[in-house]
Amino acid sequence: MTQSEEVIGENESSAVEFEVASAIERAVGKNEPRNARISTIVIIVAMQTEALPLVNKFQLSEDPNSPFPNGVPWVRYHGTYKGLQINIVWPGKDSLHGVDSVGTVSASLVTYSSIHSLKPDLIINAGTAGGFKAKGAAISDVYLASEVAFHDRRIPIPIFDQYGVGVRKTVDTPNLLSQVKLKHGKLSTGDSLDMSPHDEASIMANDAVIKDMEGAAIAYVASLFSVPTIFLKAVTDIVDSDKPTPEEFLENLVAVSLALDDAVTRVVDFLAGRSLTEL
Amino acid sequence: MTQSEEVIGENESSAVEFEVASAIERAVGKNEPRNARISTIVIIVAMQTEALPLVNKFQLSEDPNSPFPNGVPWVRYHGTYKGLQINIVWPGKDSLHGVDSVGTVSASLVTYSSIHSLKPDLIINAGTAGGFKAKGAAISDVYLASEVAFHDRRIPIPIFDQYGVGVRKTVDTPNLLSQVKLKHGKLSTGDSLDMSPHDEASIMANDAVIKDMEGAAIAYVASLFSVPTIFLKAVTDIVDSDKPTPEEFLENLVAVSLALDDAVTRVVDFLAGRSLTEL
Repeated sequence: MTQSEEVIGENESSAVEFEVASAIERAVGKNEPRNARISTIVIIVAMQTEALPLVNKFQLSEDPNSPFPNGVPWVRYHGTYKGLQINIVWPGKDSLHGVDSVGTVSASLVTYSSIHSLKPDLIINAGTAGGFKAKGAAISDVYLASEVAFHDRRIPIPIFDQYGVGVRKTVDTPNLLSQVKLKHGKLSTGDSLDMSPHDEASIMANDAVIKDMEGAAIAYVASLFSVPTIFLKAVTDIVDSDKPTPEEFLENLVAVSLALDDAVTRVVDFLAGRSLTEL
Repeated sequence: MTQSEEVIGENESSAVEFEVASAIERAVGKNEPRNARISTIVIIVAMQTEALPLVNKFQLSEDPNSPFPNGVPWVRYHGTYKGLQINIVWPGKDSLHGVDSVGTVSASLVTYSSIHSLKPDLIINAGTAGGFKAKGAAISDVYLASEVAFHDRRIPIPIFDQYGVGVRKTVDTPNLLSQVKLKHGKLSTGDSLDMSPHDEASIMANDAVIKDMEGAAIAYVASLFSVPTIFLKAVTDIVDSDKPTPEEFLENLVAVSLALDDAVTRVVDFLAGRSLTEL
């Protein structure tokens, strides 16, 4: 470790705030004033069951000329809704196993490629999550994440440990939060659907009320390119209950996807005609 | 789950073999016959300490016109060595924390971007790893991975569980293995430097002799684009010993990087003038 690295580590919280501020500044750099109306949105959704109701709601169609390279299973649905260019990007079915390409690796890649090919003003990561009833979460609640972090990247070396956790505050959206009825809390991300004791300790350290499998990775990639990102997560299962997560998740997936669908629609309705400064 | 998904799941091992075979087939599709000499190599190295001895050995220089987009910390070193276009790609220092951008998210992104901008015939992922002495690993051993898988993506839903583990056989390299003195064994990947009991159970299920933090993610991305990839991993710490991994890792990192350096050089010397069919 060099001394400069240690200094960066010690000033982490101010560095995070600087990063968020400069992200908003640099978003201006896209030839658009910060108070210009939001025009292009990318909604990243990990599962087809979560994505299709939204595709129907916004009357989007699948892009016959995929903006993505040959070889990837990623799917883009797009269209215009209330003056907004809406893109729903779904990582698609794994070519080998035929299931949704969930998790941080696929989420990182589609975020990277979507930013470069679609140049969004704003990214929305919408999906389902586990919730902690001890922190107030209930099935079908929809949360807007105030902060994201990882809970399965334990690197017990000074500074590397903070890199692993990768806490990122999300963009402030006080008007959105007050006008669209949503819960607000911290999100923790890991590549497992279940929760090991080590994961649980990290999630508690992250002070998270919800856990998902993509959010912090999407936040990381979006932060590299200063694209403001908001996270909408609907609770499919209560992590701190006796019911096994996989059963509860599958049982509630379809119904909770409709609650998510409704929340995303209300958020997109709010965004129509507004600028980043009005969030 | 649809029926077709189940069928894919049941035939997984033949699907994996098919994938490897078709990867080699499709590599031919790059306007180059399969028996053409390998010309462009991308060596992905997660840490600067591991990368710099190789940069010096091959007398590479940092690319002043980065092939990567603004915003990313990724660094490309390149040059010509024994007729090969050699690129060493290092994910760089995290802009917030100043430490190497280790782990699967950065590794996935640099692999994706390197494939598209540098169009390699072959990728080498070179790095350090933890080894299991119960399976024969010792400090400074260099392994060529026979297979890669994840150990921290537990998704206990049928078929999703196999997607999470993501086993991939690596390209067969019988000649390389017999001519360059290397150990051969399975590699398991996760985003933590330490090993939780859940990780350990998955690593044992993966039958791995070494564990790292990038390999399976690089294999996943390379497989999307059918780029043959080999994994060279030098053992910095013995996971199944009493010594704490972080201490042992930091103590051995510089010395073991030299052993890695030597192995990579011998592999690259072997590749010079050969085709993919001669590996």
